Amino acid sequence: MNYVALRLGYDGSAYHGWQRQHNALTVQETLEKALSRLYKEEIHVTGCGRTDAGVHARKYLANFRTRGAIPLDRLPLAVNALLPHDVAVSGACAVEEDFHAVFSCTRKEYTYYIRSGGYRDPFELRRVWYRPEALDLDVMRRAAAGFLGTHDFAAVRSVGTNVKTTVRTVYEFAVEREGALFSFRIAASGFLYNMARAMVGTVVYASIGKLSPEDIPRILDSGDRCLAGPTVPPQGLYMTDVRYPGAAGRLMEG
Amino acid sequence: MNYVALRLGYDGSAYHGWQRQHNALTVQETLEKALSRLYKEEIHVTGCGRTDAGVHARKYLANFRTRGAIPLDRLPLAVNALLPHDVAVSGACAVEEDFHAVFSCTRKEYTYYIRSGGYRDPFELRRVWYRPEALDLDVMRRAAAGFLGTHDFAAVRSVGTNVKTTVRTVYEFAVEREGALFSFRIAASGFLYNMARAMVGTVVYASIGKLSPEDIPRILDSGDRCLAGPTVPPQGLYMTDVRYPGAAGRLMEG
Repeated sequence: MNYVALRLGYDGSAYHGWQRQHNALTVQETLEKALSRLYKEEIHVTGCGRTDAGVHARKYLANFRTRGAIPLDRLPLAVNALLPHDVAVSGACAVEEDFHAVFSCTRKEYTYYIRSGGYRDPFELRRVWYRPEALDLDVMRRAAAGFLGTHDFAAVRSVGTNVKTTVRTVYEFAVEREGALFSFRIAASGFLYNMARAMVGTVVYASIGKLSPEDIPRILDSGDRCLAGPTVPPQGLYMTDVRYPGAAGRLMEG
Repeated sequence: MNYVALRLGYDGSAYHGWQRQHNALTVQETLEKALSRLYKEEIHVTGCGRTDAGVHARKYLANFRTRGAIPLDRLPLAVNALLPHDVAVSGACAVEEDFHAVFSCTRKEYTYYIRSGGYRDPFELRRVWYRPEALDLDVMRRAAAGFLGTHDFAAVRSVGTNVKTTVRTVYEFAVEREGALFSFRIAASGFLYNMARAMVGTVVYASIGKLSPEDIPRILDSGDRCLAGPTVPPQGLYMTDVRYPGAAGRLMEG
């Protein structure tokens, strides 16, 4: 049996998220169909995260096992030829039998984009969240700093998936600005359901005066979802990095 | 009567080009509907060029006349509120009664994008032309230089619109590369139907050895469309600049 990890990216606009569903098109199903056709056997893939409908991935890892032996340097172009053009594989490597896209992962990163002030960009439809009012970079940076470290993040998750613990470690929360385009890059040991979008919503709420940037530690301590800001819409969110030890780690760095 | 010029941009993916048609959605019709609703009178707009189905515009000018007197600094946000999010107005100014989006124009610029070699980018679907084989920057630059100056460009146009003369002046044809993404920026006094896409196709044909970069002057002299390269597909093409004297010129510079 061969154990393979793929590096891929996708524009999530046309998909109901990563995870296979009964009555909606997903990225997982799309990738599994292409791989199954290529290998002429049923392939099941495990993805590194359940991105929501409309959420994108610039770097994403999926792993699978197969009896087939397609050379891994030729696998990306071969599978891309069978995929729609909004999903693209850009690398493949062999992994150990016990490798798992979720459980082997050591660090994930999401980046959220907001265009604020000025005019809408017609090329950012389904790609960036547009808010006509201005945002305050300094206030948002102060609020973002309050999330750093190891905490219980129950206050910034949506209920819906069962997890053993709501404790995670946020390594970075960098808020940057280029003209009217703001980016919010969050790196963490892992993300709870809707956690990245609720963290961005909370930082935006601080910017527009609906809470104080100094409130964040108290909000996290409370564990109360109602005290934090809203979950911002999906189209501005991108999975931008995911890290692993060993061969899969080198695959994602490339 | 008030005479107004608008600066706008659009993602052309969902439209059958700029110009109003009977049975297909166009950008002109979309803009006219929004303006007519805003001014509560029938507004007809004149656009600076007939972009084809799937072609985009980062900078585009349209002018119209109205009895209405909406303050021009508030017009962009007011009309954007009535437009779909793949069309956006980013400026407005008053113009003279004899101003015309096409006939007052002094210089137009189109930019074409090709990703070549490497893997497809899933975010470039309907935005960039992807070709798996490598392209040769030096050969393409030598071919591009052959188009500079004042010539009869009949060899690189598609028949379909009546024009008085097929003589135009090409001021610039800059071929650049950033990683695997090539850009082809063409500035001219005006463009014949499909001229920009046929010029790019001819330069690509030189790169893949189907003609010599030194053949361009002879191809232009022949006036024979069959000697030049093919018309490349629309999704890689963007109107990126359009210049005017006076107030409209300052509007487009901003």
